Amino acid sequence: MDLSSFLTSVLTSFVIFVVLVLVFTWLSRRPGNAPVYYPSLLLRGLDPWEGRRRGTRSPVGWIQDAIAASENDVIAAGGVDAAVYLVFLSSVLSILVYSGIVLLPVLLPVAGTDHALETSMGIDSPNKSAQSSQDFSAMDRLTMGNVGQGSKRLWAFLLSVYWVSFVTYFVLWKSYKHVSNLRAAARSTPDVKPEEFAVLVRDVPKPSPDETIKDSVDSYFRALHPDTYYRSLVVTDHTKADKIYQKIEGHKQKIARAEVVYANSKTESNPEGTKPTHKTGFLGIIGKKVDTIEYCSEQIKELLPKLEAEQKTTLRDKQQRSAIVFFNSRSAAASASQTLHAQVFDKWTVMEAPEPREIIWPNLPRSIYERQIRQAVVYTIVFLVVFFYMIPITAVSAVTTLENLRQKLPFLKVVVDQQIIKTILEAYLPQIALIVFLALLPTLLMFLSKAEGIPSQSHAVRAASGKYFYFVVFNVFLVYTLGQTLFKSLTTIINHPAEIVNMLGNSLPGGATFFLTFVALKFFVGYGLELSRVVPLIIFHLKRKYLCKTEDEVKAAWAPGDLGYNTRVPNDMLIATLVLCYSVIAPLIIPFGVAYFALGWLIAKNQVLRVYVPNYESNGRMWPHMHTRIIVALLVYQITMFGFIPLKKFYYSPILLPLILMTILFAYACHMRFYPAFAKTPLEVARHELKETPNMDAIYTAYIPQCLKPDKLEDLDVFEDCQSHSTSRAPSI
Amino acid sequence: MDLSSFLTSVLTSFVIFVVLVLVFTWLSRRPGNAPVYYPSLLLRGLDPWEGRRRGTRSPVGWIQDAIAASENDVIAAGGVDAAVYLVFLSSVLSILVYSGIVLLPVLLPVAGTDHALETSMGIDSPNKSAQSSQDFSAMDRLTMGNVGQGSKRLWAFLLSVYWVSFVTYFVLWKSYKHVSNLRAAARSTPDVKPEEFAVLVRDVPKPSPDETIKDSVDSYFRALHPDTYYRSLVVTDHTKADKIYQKIEGHKQKIARAEVVYANSKTESNPEGTKPTHKTGFLGIIGKKVDTIEYCSEQIKELLPKLEAEQKTTLRDKQQRSAIVFFNSRSAAASASQTLHAQVFDKWTVMEAPEPREIIWPNLPRSIYERQIRQAVVYTIVFLVVFFYMIPITAVSAVTTLENLRQKLPFLKVVVDQQIIKTILEAYLPQIALIVFLALLPTLLMFLSKAEGIPSQSHAVRAASGKYFYFVVFNVFLVYTLGQTLFKSLTTIINHPAEIVNMLGNSLPGGATFFLTFVALKFFVGYGLELSRVVPLIIFHLKRKYLCKTEDEVKAAWAPGDLGYNTRVPNDMLIATLVLCYSVIAPLIIPFGVAYFALGWLIAKNQVLRVYVPNYESNGRMWPHMHTRIIVALLVYQITMFGFIPLKKFYYSPILLPLILMTILFAYACHMRFYPAFAKTPLEVARHELKETPNMDAIYTAYIPQCLKPDKLEDLDVFEDCQSHSTSRAPSI
Repeated sequence: MDLSSFLTSVLTSFVIFVVLVLVFTWLSRRPGNAPVYYPSLLLRGLDPWEGRRRGTRSPVGWIQDAIAASENDVIAAGGVDAAVYLVFLSSVLSILVYSGIVLLPVLLPVAGTDHALETSMGIDSPNKSAQSSQDFSAMDRLTMGNVGQGSKRLWAFLLSVYWVSFVTYFVLWKSYKHVSNLRAAARSTPDVKPEEFAVLVRDVPKPSPDETIKDSVDSYFRALHPDTYYRSLVVTDHTKADKIYQKIEGHKQKIARAEVVYANSKTESNPEGTKPTHKTGFLGIIGKKVDTIEYCSEQIKELLPKLEAEQKTTLRDKQQRSAIVFFNSRSAAASASQTLHAQVFDKWTVMEAPEPREIIWPNLPRSIYERQIRQAVVYTIVFLVVFFYMIPITAVSAVTTLENLRQKLPFLKVVVDQQIIKTILEAYLPQIALIVFLALLPTLLMFLSKAEGIPSQSHAVRAASGKYFYFVVFNVFLVYTLGQTLFKSLTTIINHPAEIVNMLGNSLPGGATFFLTFVALKFFVGYGLELSRVVPLIIFHLKRKYLCKTEDEVKAAWAPGDLGYNTRVPNDMLIATLVLCYSVIAPLIIPFGVAYFALGWLIAKNQVLRVYVPNYESNGRMWPHMHTRIIVALLVYQITMFGFIPLKKFYYSPILLPLILMTILFAYACHMRFYPAFAKTPLEVARHELKETPNMDAIYTAYIPQCLKPDKLEDLDVFEDCQSHSTSRAPSI
Repeated sequence: MDLSSFLTSVLTSFVIFVVLVLVFTWLSRRPGNAPVYYPSLLLRGLDPWEGRRRGTRSPVGWIQDAIAASENDVIAAGGVDAAVYLVFLSSVLSILVYSGIVLLPVLLPVAGTDHALETSMGIDSPNKSAQSSQDFSAMDRLTMGNVGQGSKRLWAFLLSVYWVSFVTYFVLWKSYKHVSNLRAAARSTPDVKPEEFAVLVRDVPKPSPDETIKDSVDSYFRALHPDTYYRSLVVTDHTKADKIYQKIEGHKQKIARAEVVYANSKTESNPEGTKPTHKTGFLGIIGKKVDTIEYCSEQIKELLPKLEAEQKTTLRDKQQRSAIVFFNSRSAAASASQTLHAQVFDKWTVMEAPEPREIIWPNLPRSIYERQIRQAVVYTIVFLVVFFYMIPITAVSAVTTLENLRQKLPFLKVVVDQQIIKTILEAYLPQIALIVFLALLPTLLMFLSKAEGIPSQSHAVRAASGKYFYFVVFNVFLVYTLGQTLFKSLTTIINHPAEIVNMLGNSLPGGATFFLTFVALKFFVGYGLELSRVVPLIIFHLKRKYLCKTEDEVKAAWAPGDLGYNTRVPNDMLIATLVLCYSVIAPLIIPFGVAYFALGWLIAKNQVLRVYVPNYESNGRMWPHMHTRIIVALLVYQITMFGFIPLKKFYYSPILLPLILMTILFAYACHMRFYPAFAKTPLEVARHELKETPNMDAIYTAYIPQCLKPDKLEDLDVFEDCQSHSTSRAPSI
């Protein structure tokens, strides 16, 4: 790629970005768009324009706001998880900035003043040497490719790897410490959090015939924790109850909607209004026509006793071999969740309880053996997906070439035979196949992670994110870089096998330009779309105009969702890996990386403060995961350099071996020092005072699934009684 | 090796064994030898001949006794550890018996009726074929070496590997279950055991300047366990106090001894007697002559106040950053030992407390970083020792050839120049070097294991045993088998490299005979010596006659020690590995293995019941270690077979791959299912009722080192007070 086409590409991206930022600036000022640009503020009951100087509503007002916001503001708005995500972005940013400060002024002159590219070209075609020196754009001259083979200048590149690694250790250590403190602070707030009083129990053994599972859980935990045990909630198979409950909710929504429609139909010309009707059959298209309000009310009346009966049956007969056990203090729960209870491992396994809202109920009763087998199967599938993902894509691309399509779907001929369309389609068809496959991947990985038997949403997100990271790094980075180089030079290799080494050495730096463009495209266009929220904006306005009738429906239309860490983190990690790996080969990539993470940090902070609403709070449990991935990236970088530098006929690269060992030791030291406080709750943290005596009933109720929840708190005892054969009421506190 | 020399060797061993058993039968009946043959009984206050019918004092009486003794008798005599060792022996025995039942009747005829050995020999020297068939002893004909290449008969051998593996899984699973129950039963006895109320705390952070370490431990644990915390005992550097204490004890012993000597000297001719004297200088050879009793009494009088002062200094100023923390219930201690206490990993690490008698005090205060580094260094050293042990031995053998010795130490000439002595020395010198090195090894490994920073004796024994196992398997089994084969055929290999495969295939079964002899020698001679206790007997009688004056000294002379698991287990494991690995190649080895483990079980049981006294009780904590080693042996076996069968030009050996995978899965399943209850104390087990209200003062005192122990229980408070700046008396219970 020459300089002009590179500049064109970057400039185009930049123009798109500027346009989208302008769109954002303009649109976000209009009050009607507030639910799209400030949903988090609205949900927290804040006025988006309250408390700000009107003067700051300048195009850069949001930037000032984002920079001014403290970490505590971020935690208040998006929870510790969001704050940790920002720490992740700023850590990578710091690594790149510190690296760049040394690498750019040192390596660019060292590379730029050498003449390897000119020389090698000059030998091949001596008569074209004047012209060829112009062929090499400034870009390529500033890479390691321009340094002569075996030159002493390569020492600068070798030692730069050390600098980057040490910077990474330093930043990561500081960040891990910081996040540890964030987590400890979040876990020791005086707020009462139900999950801190609860323990998730799985693999409950089969009870004796005269006991229910609830009875056996109660008697087991009461015996082992006589002073601190409070109550237990046995997991039930409430699919059926939930179905009825959802039906009732559906009918309620229909009534609400019908009432609004009815009220709106009372115009002056028709003061009575028309009662809305619908058909009872499939999708409301066929069947008997009925008055919606009347019909739904009747349905609800019919369903309510059914629900009640089903609730009782569920509680009594559909108990599963898993439970949530409550303790009357946080230390007791923390201690119980870390203590081995049973003599054999496949019974009474305990762990910290997840937040009520993020529990994946169907996974709780899975036995330890089932979990093991599912995990093994899922890992195998993921392994196959990561390694052989390119095969189906290539196959699909091959089948869907234009010529094939044209023959099989003759009606396309009219379109396809036009020259311009043909060219465009031919160029983009494989890419479209790739994009469709890639778009499906996060969903597939999330599905697979949940299928492992993981009990909580946040854990599933971590698992999916890990899988996606390895996929992305393997397929995009390794396959693309090496694959491209190898494919291009396949003929050369066959004729002169020894050439391959030279080839690799010369073309790896070339890949840098491609990735530079990739990073630029990714961040300008991606961040522009992210900030301007064009797609959610359009969807929201369309929905509000044509679909939503009630307030609740409008609210649902702008519900912002959470940050989606499972795709966001791996994508950032891909950029981090790319920039790290090319940082020494082509140091010019560093400013782009810095821009990516700086802008990413700014925009993510804005979005966290104003837009996204967390689905769960794992108190930064994601951090060890991010930390490990950055270390993996560093290892990939070190190994790449270890393999790449000898290609330059420079044989001091074993000097990098201690560095690889050091990285592994560093990872181990961090794991030893910080990880336990993420995996378990330290007693130090759990003993902090609460601001009020916890309302244990409320804590208990928080875990009852919506469809089984009794209407009044007084019904809790009835709720408990129908679960056990003997009465085992909890002591009232 | 031909049949006759094999038989000679086995018969010689057997004769030695029979002689030693007869010696044992004869000597053990003499009451004067009771302290050698029944020390365990004596120490438990039992009369060796009480309660037995005099009639059973037949030569096989001890066998009847050993077989009749139940597992509970064994636990009463030698603790759970001894019982677990017997389970280990009987498990290997069962594996071999079950294997033999199928392998012997199937494989021996299959191998014996083939003619590969004759044929191959026949081709080489057709005119000697009649004679050569006699050359092959019955021994070699019954090995896999006699089966033709690519013969269908090899299926029987291949499938036998499956049979042996399944038998091993079955037996190991049952044994692990059994040992788990043994351990649970032992841990839930109603006896009060101090270690079950205590937790070992390491990495105590530096206290603030106005606190002692004791104060900070107290306040920290009292805050985290307000209801269950009892007291703490800070580890001190008591080397100096201990030195003074030992001096005092030495003087006391000298006085006791002198008094006996004095009393004995009062004969009729000399009714006054002679007061014993000694010289105060080096080794009692030089210096002033003093009256022993007077001198020592004075010394004690001088030392006692010194000890008291040193005790106070130690308690106040030599506190180390480690402590033993006591709780008022077993569940509380079990729970606390499993719970993460501090936010960072390098502070306040907790683990279950070892028994008081097996604590390695100097290792307790080592920080987590020091422990890590020490472990890394020790592992490196062990790795080097395992792989390069043969090198110094070979070097030493080379230097110490007779010719060299003769030149360097001319005074040896007189001896060496005699033909018989020369022959013998030349034959045995390398072996003697090997034996000396091997004899030093367990001590070296034990020293290294302790240097790792392990807090308890039992753990150090496990660590040393593991290291020894890998050493023995690598050096004896692998190096010997392969090394011998390779060395012998070095010239062949150089001339016909392709021959090596055939060579290996033909000579591996030959190695079987060597190992058969080895096993026979080991068990007949080893067990004979073990049972007859000839060496301890001689030492005891010599000591009693010439050295011991007081009762205490006689008692010390026959103190039996414990079983010495750190060398015993790896040696048994070596035999188990050998027998397993050759079980299919040369099934005749199985009966020898069976004899080894049957006799081993019988003799070990006898020795446990009558001789050895355990130094510590780890409640079968050794079992997971033994289990893992048996599985490693099984893996070595499966991999050997996987590599060996194709040498017979039989290409179905990949059928063994699933078996290797299965073994790994089996190990994982066992680890998952049973291991946690060995690593931690399950609450189920800890909650069992005690037979009496525990005397917490006694529990506390049990952990105070001998040299710091206050004379009376009432002094405990003074003992505690001098450790802290503030008074932090424990609540009396």
